[in-house]
Amino acid sequence: MTEAPTACILIIGDEILSGRTQDTNIKYMAGRLAALGIKLKEARVVPDVPEAIIAAVNFCRVLYTYVFTTGGIGPTHDDITTACIARAFGRKVLRHPDAVKKMDVFYKGDLNEARLKMAEVPDGADVALIENHVTSAPGYRIENVFVMAGIPSIAQAMFEAAVPLLRQGDPVFSGSVDGEAREGDIAADLTALQEKYPKVSLGSYPSVRNNRLCTSIVARSTDKALIVQALEDVAAMMLRHGVEPKTTKP
Amino acid sequence: MTEAPTACILIIGDEILSGRTQDTNIKYMAGRLAALGIKLKEARVVPDVPEAIIAAVNFCRVLYTYVFTTGGIGPTHDDITTACIARAFGRKVLRHPDAVKKMDVFYKGDLNEARLKMAEVPDGADVALIENHVTSAPGYRIENVFVMAGIPSIAQAMFEAAVPLLRQGDPVFSGSVDGEAREGDIAADLTALQEKYPKVSLGSYPSVRNNRLCTSIVARSTDKALIVQALEDVAAMMLRHGVEPKTTKP
Repeated sequence: MTEAPTACILIIGDEILSGRTQDTNIKYMAGRLAALGIKLKEARVVPDVPEAIIAAVNFCRVLYTYVFTTGGIGPTHDDITTACIARAFGRKVLRHPDAVKKMDVFYKGDLNEARLKMAEVPDGADVALIENHVTSAPGYRIENVFVMAGIPSIAQAMFEAAVPLLRQGDPVFSGSVDGEAREGDIAADLTALQEKYPKVSLGSYPSVRNNRLCTSIVARSTDKALIVQALEDVAAMMLRHGVEPKTTKP
Repeated sequence: MTEAPTACILIIGDEILSGRTQDTNIKYMAGRLAALGIKLKEARVVPDVPEAIIAAVNFCRVLYTYVFTTGGIGPTHDDITTACIARAFGRKVLRHPDAVKKMDVFYKGDLNEARLKMAEVPDGADVALIENHVTSAPGYRIENVFVMAGIPSIAQAMFEAAVPLLRQGDPVFSGSVDGEAREGDIAADLTALQEKYPKVSLGSYPSVRNNRLCTSIVARSTDKALIVQALEDVAAMMLRHGVEPKTTKP
């Protein structure tokens, strides 16, 4: 068994750090990466500041198998991702002929200088992430860094276009047992179950629903059968505490 | 004018990195920090891995005026934030007598060992973040690091309890002009406006609504009057492009 590939997500954009926009790209990619057996080790939101973007890209691309960035590849003055990625790699920015050709068809007479900026990539990048129903401008891959748009529907399409280029690991499955248990009542028993199933990661997530405290015990593993077994034990444990368990199988 | 204080958010939790849970704490705190004049420089999601948490805390607490963490301070085996924060500061973990006293009243006879874990803080921390309607367990402050719960309603209450302890800067206001403009059509004019208003940050955020491309131009500044002026110019510019502008004043 080889080590599972790892990943980091970089969300580039002042709109997230100002509180204006709710990011949803992390959740989408995180779920997909788990299913692909790629271990998401961190996600960072960085501002539209060249030094911050360059530092984050260079730190993460050395540390992880893959880096996925979203945001900042549009035509306006605040779209600085490509310039920063190029600087991070010490490469020039070039207009990619395939991208220009594609956008020329898409925009007909409207392909101005601002739009042509969206055809620019760092030297050596391949414009593999071609799915963009909004502007036809590509995302791209440079070495192990995938550079994608920020608009969620485009980011998702670009991510899916990247999937065939990724080395995958054993997919991580998950299942859960929900119940109106208070974490503090079941914590000791849960610790014992975590020790019984060292190959399953048991997470305990409390929440408040209709003013009632609920706890969701989530089991994650590459081994589905082991998850099912662990969930049965968790459900039985909840019943012992007088809590009706609701199991969702992997 | 002194430099504005800075901040970093650390979201601690495998549930975000597995794609199970949509984080909303970043957006809440980001908006509040902008209003408080505290510059949010980055947000990170880190896994439930001690080395990752310790490294992130120690990196960020040196770099920024304030660090806000959410998640991992509950009673179960996967709640490891306090142990990690203590290691990051080279401190012991102690049971805080005020927290024990408070939880003893809250839980009456049910205050078991698992719950008492929630009364533990690194030596020297103050249990200032007392608002917790769910478990009565406190969040706490240790030097410039604020450690809060992950459940959004509790995280928000704890953040508000932290506000009086924060040095504030000039609040950043924002307003916007929305319209069915395509970014590429207005990019050049927008660059000129950004140059005209160097003290206003103009961001351009495209989106797709009802299958139509929209662009939201957001102006941010500590100077409200300047925002209003810039937005008027942006609206006039959109009109010149045949787009009906919808202005939201700061």
